[in-house]
Amino acid sequence: MNYKMIAYILGGVLRVEGLLLLLPTGIAIYYGEDVALRAFLITVAACLLVGFAAKWKEPEDKRIYGREGFVVVALSWIAMSFFGAFPFYFSGVIQGAVNCFFETVSGFTTTGATILQDIEILPRSILFWRSFTHWIGGMGILVFMLAIMPMGDDRSMYLMKAEAPGPMVSKLVPKVKSTAKLLYGIYIILTLLEMIMLFFAGMPLFDSVVNAFSTAGTGGFSIRNASIAAYDSRYFEYVITVFMLLFSVNFNLYYLLFIRDFKNVLRNEEFRYFLAIVGFTTLLITINIWHLYPTLEEAFRRAAFQVVSIVSTTGFVTANYDLWPEFSKTIIFCLTTLGACGGSTGGGIKISRFIILVKIAAREIKHIVHPRSVNLIKLDGYKIEENVIRGVTGYIIIYFLLLFGSFLLVSMNNFGFTTSFTAVVTCLSNVGPGFALVGPIENLFFLSAFSKLVLCMDMLLGRLEIFPIIMLFAPSIWRKSYM
Amino acid sequence: MNYKMIAYILGGVLRVEGLLLLLPTGIAIYYGEDVALRAFLITVAACLLVGFAAKWKEPEDKRIYGREGFVVVALSWIAMSFFGAFPFYFSGVIQGAVNCFFETVSGFTTTGATILQDIEILPRSILFWRSFTHWIGGMGILVFMLAIMPMGDDRSMYLMKAEAPGPMVSKLVPKVKSTAKLLYGIYIILTLLEMIMLFFAGMPLFDSVVNAFSTAGTGGFSIRNASIAAYDSRYFEYVITVFMLLFSVNFNLYYLLFIRDFKNVLRNEEFRYFLAIVGFTTLLITINIWHLYPTLEEAFRRAAFQVVSIVSTTGFVTANYDLWPEFSKTIIFCLTTLGACGGSTGGGIKISRFIILVKIAAREIKHIVHPRSVNLIKLDGYKIEENVIRGVTGYIIIYFLLLFGSFLLVSMNNFGFTTSFTAVVTCLSNVGPGFALVGPIENLFFLSAFSKLVLCMDMLLGRLEIFPIIMLFAPSIWRKSYM
Repeated sequence: MNYKMIAYILGGVLRVEGLLLLLPTGIAIYYGEDVALRAFLITVAACLLVGFAAKWKEPEDKRIYGREGFVVVALSWIAMSFFGAFPFYFSGVIQGAVNCFFETVSGFTTTGATILQDIEILPRSILFWRSFTHWIGGMGILVFMLAIMPMGDDRSMYLMKAEAPGPMVSKLVPKVKSTAKLLYGIYIILTLLEMIMLFFAGMPLFDSVVNAFSTAGTGGFSIRNASIAAYDSRYFEYVITVFMLLFSVNFNLYYLLFIRDFKNVLRNEEFRYFLAIVGFTTLLITINIWHLYPTLEEAFRRAAFQVVSIVSTTGFVTANYDLWPEFSKTIIFCLTTLGACGGSTGGGIKISRFIILVKIAAREIKHIVHPRSVNLIKLDGYKIEENVIRGVTGYIIIYFLLLFGSFLLVSMNNFGFTTSFTAVVTCLSNVGPGFALVGPIENLFFLSAFSKLVLCMDMLLGRLEIFPIIMLFAPSIWRKSYM
Repeated sequence: MNYKMIAYILGGVLRVEGLLLLLPTGIAIYYGEDVALRAFLITVAACLLVGFAAKWKEPEDKRIYGREGFVVVALSWIAMSFFGAFPFYFSGVIQGAVNCFFETVSGFTTTGATILQDIEILPRSILFWRSFTHWIGGMGILVFMLAIMPMGDDRSMYLMKAEAPGPMVSKLVPKVKSTAKLLYGIYIILTLLEMIMLFFAGMPLFDSVVNAFSTAGTGGFSIRNASIAAYDSRYFEYVITVFMLLFSVNFNLYYLLFIRDFKNVLRNEEFRYFLAIVGFTTLLITINIWHLYPTLEEAFRRAAFQVVSIVSTTGFVTANYDLWPEFSKTIIFCLTTLGACGGSTGGGIKISRFIILVKIAAREIKHIVHPRSVNLIKLDGYKIEENVIRGVTGYIIIYFLLLFGSFLLVSMNNFGFTTSFTAVVTCLSNVGPGFALVGPIENLFFLSAFSKLVLCMDMLLGRLEIFPIIMLFAPSIWRKSYM
C-alpha cells in the first residue's frame, strides 16, 4: 500500500473541494448571508489547510494499483462528505452532526434523500451548496481532479475505474486526462443548456441554476418543499424530464455523436434497452393512472416525469406516486433498483449490468436445454469476457447481501416493512424517495442517528458501486508490507 | 424429446397418486363421510384411468436425458396437483376451481399457504388428504416412484436430480433405486417417531398423524384455525420445533449417522451454518421480544418455534409474529428467503446455496485485493466445480427476476407493498405465511384468481427449484427432432 501517494491524492481532493466551495462563498457574499458566509469561509480554510498539510509534492514512489485506486476513492468520498458538511453544521441551519453528514453524503452521492423538514427557510448560499454537491458528485470529484491535475496516465486509470459507474469503463480517447476533460466538457455543456432552457422560459435565475445542478447529477435535491411540482408548469416538467433522460445515458454516446460515429450509437444495446424500458413503463403507468387525472396528457406527463426521475435515480417529484395504484408503485419500485445506464451520472444496478444478468440467466437455461452447446454472452455485438461476467455476478450477490443486511439494521427503527425496506433500496440506488414514511413527499428526519449512518453507508456503497467501500474493511489491504 | 417415455412416467405418477388416495378414501369410509368418499372414489378412478391410458408398458426407446427429466418432473407436479384438487372440488368443501388447485399446489409444494377461512368445519378425510399432500410432496413423488417402480439406473438419476432440492445431488449408495428407498425409509421412520411422541403425550391420534405429515413435509397446513397454538402445550411446541429442525437437515446426514460416519457429519458445513443461523436468530429474537412475554422461557419458546418453522419453510405458527417488533419481523423475512438445507424436505434458496453465494462474494473481493491470487471455492473441504458455481449464480439471478416479475403481477391486486411482496416471497420459498394481509394468522382467500395462479406458479417454481418449470416454456425443447 502506497500511503504517501494516497495522502497526496486525498490532499488534492480536499484542495479541489476548497476551491469549489468558493462558488457558494461568493453567493453568500452576493446575498449578504453573513452566518452562512462565516461557515463557508471556515470550511474553505479547513479544506485548504488539511489539503496542503496532507502532501503538496507528488511522492517519489508514484506506483498505485487497483487496490490503492479503490481505497483512495472511498476515502476521498468520505473525506469530502465530512468537510462538505461543515457549512450546514457551522451555519446552524441543520441541527446535529449526523444530520449534516447525511445531507452531504446524500448530496455527493446524488441520492437526494433529505432530512430537512422545511427547505425553503434555508439561506440561498446553503441551498446552492446543497445542489452543487449533486453536480460535483454526479461526474465524480476524482474525474474532475484527473482533468485538471498533472498525473501519469497509467495510475489515473485506476482512479477513474474505481469512481466511474457501470460494469465496464472505457476510455473515450487514449489518454485518461483527455477523457476526463471530454466527459466534464459534455457535462458542463448539457448543464448550461438546461439552465438556459429553464431560465429563458421564465424560471428565476437562481432556481434555473440549482435545478440544473440537481438534474445534471441525477441528484434530486430541490429548493422547494414541493420539489418540481412547486413550479406548476407543463413546460418545465417536460424540459426537466428530457434532461433527466439525457443525464442518465452513457456519456460515451455524446462523444460518439460528436465524432459522427452514428453506427456505434445505434449499436449500443444498453441505450436501446433503456429507451424501451422507459417507454414501456411510462405507457403502463399512464394507462394505470389515467382515471386519476383530468386529461390523458396530464397522466402521460406525470407518468413520464416520475418514471424518468426514478430510473435516472434523480428523485424529483411532480406527483405523489405513493397514492397511485399498487401496480404503478411496484413498477416504480423495480425501476428504483434498476437505475440508469453505466457511464452516466445515474445510480442503481445499471441497465448494462441488468442486461448482462438477463443474458447469464438465459445462458444458464440454454445450457440445460442444450448441454453441449457453447453460449457466448455478447453486448453490442462483442463477446463479454468471463471476468466481467464474474464481476457482475459478484456485484449482484454482494448487492443483495448488503440490501438485506442494511434492511435488518434499519428495521430496528420500528417504522414498518415498506418504510425500512424502500429506504434502504432507494439509498443503495441513490434515488432518494421510497414509499410509506419515506415516500415522495416525506423526509428522513424521523429516523434514528444509527439508521441515518447505515443509510449514509448505503448511499456511498451505491454511488461507488460497492467495492471501494468494502475494500476499507479488508484487513489485509492495510498491511504496510503488502504488495 | 422422448414423448413416449414422458407419457409412461407421467402415467406411473398418476397411478401412484391413485394408490396413495386410497388412504384418505379409507378415512372417509371410517368416519362415514359420504360426500367426501364419493369425491375420493371419483379421483381414484380418474387417476387410475388416465394413469393406465397414458402408457402401461415401458416403451422400447427408454433413453431420457436431463431435459426430459426436467420436463417430466414439471408435468408430473402439475398433473398430480390437477388431479389432487378433485377431492376438494367434487366434495364441494372448497368453492371454485382455482381455490381447489391453489390449495393442492400449496399442499404438494409443502408451502402451506391456505385459502380456507375456516379449516375446522372440513371433513376429516379431506383434512387428512390436505396434510398428506405435504407428506407426499416433501420427499417428492418421483423419488417415491423410483423406490417402488422398476427403472434403469442411468435414467432415474435425471429424475432424481430434477426433483431433489439443493445445488448438488449425490447418491447415498451407488444405485438410485436404493438411494430412493433409503431416503423414504429415513423419512417414514422420522415421521412415525413424531407421531408417537405426539400421540403418547396426549394429542388425539388423528391430530398426531396429520401434524406429523405437515411437519415431515415442512408444509405447515394445520387442521386447527389457530395452527399449533390451538394445542396450547409447551411440550407439543418443543417436540414440533425439534422435528421441524430434523426435517430441514440434509437427509444424507442421517444415512451417515446410520453407517457411523461421524467425521463426515461434522465436516458438513451446511449443517454447521444452519445450526449457527438458527441459534443466532433465535437468540436475537428472544432478546427482542422478551418484554412481550411473561417469562424468558416463553419468549425463547416462541422465538425458537417461529424461527425453526420459517427457516425449515414449514409455516406452523404459535405466535402472531406480525405483532412483534420490526427487527424480529425482518429477521423472519430474511429467513423466509433463506430456507432450509439442500437434500431436506424444506424449500427456499437453501443454506448450501447461500454459503456458496457468500463465498463467491468473498472470492470477488479477494480477487480485487490480490488480483493475481487464485481463489478456489470449497465446501466441506472439497473444491466446488465451476459449473456448480455457474448454476448457483444463474439460479439466484433467475430467482430474483422471477421474484420481481411475480411481485409486479400480484401487485395488480392493490393490497399494498408488504402484502404483495411477502406473499410472493413466501410462496417462492414454500413457507406459507407472509406479513400484513397474508400474515401468520391470515389466509389468501381474498386474492384474485389471477394472483392465486401466479402464486401457484411461484410455489411450483420454488419447490422444483425453478428450472423444470422454466423448461416447459422453452420452445426448442418441444421440437420432435430435438436431440
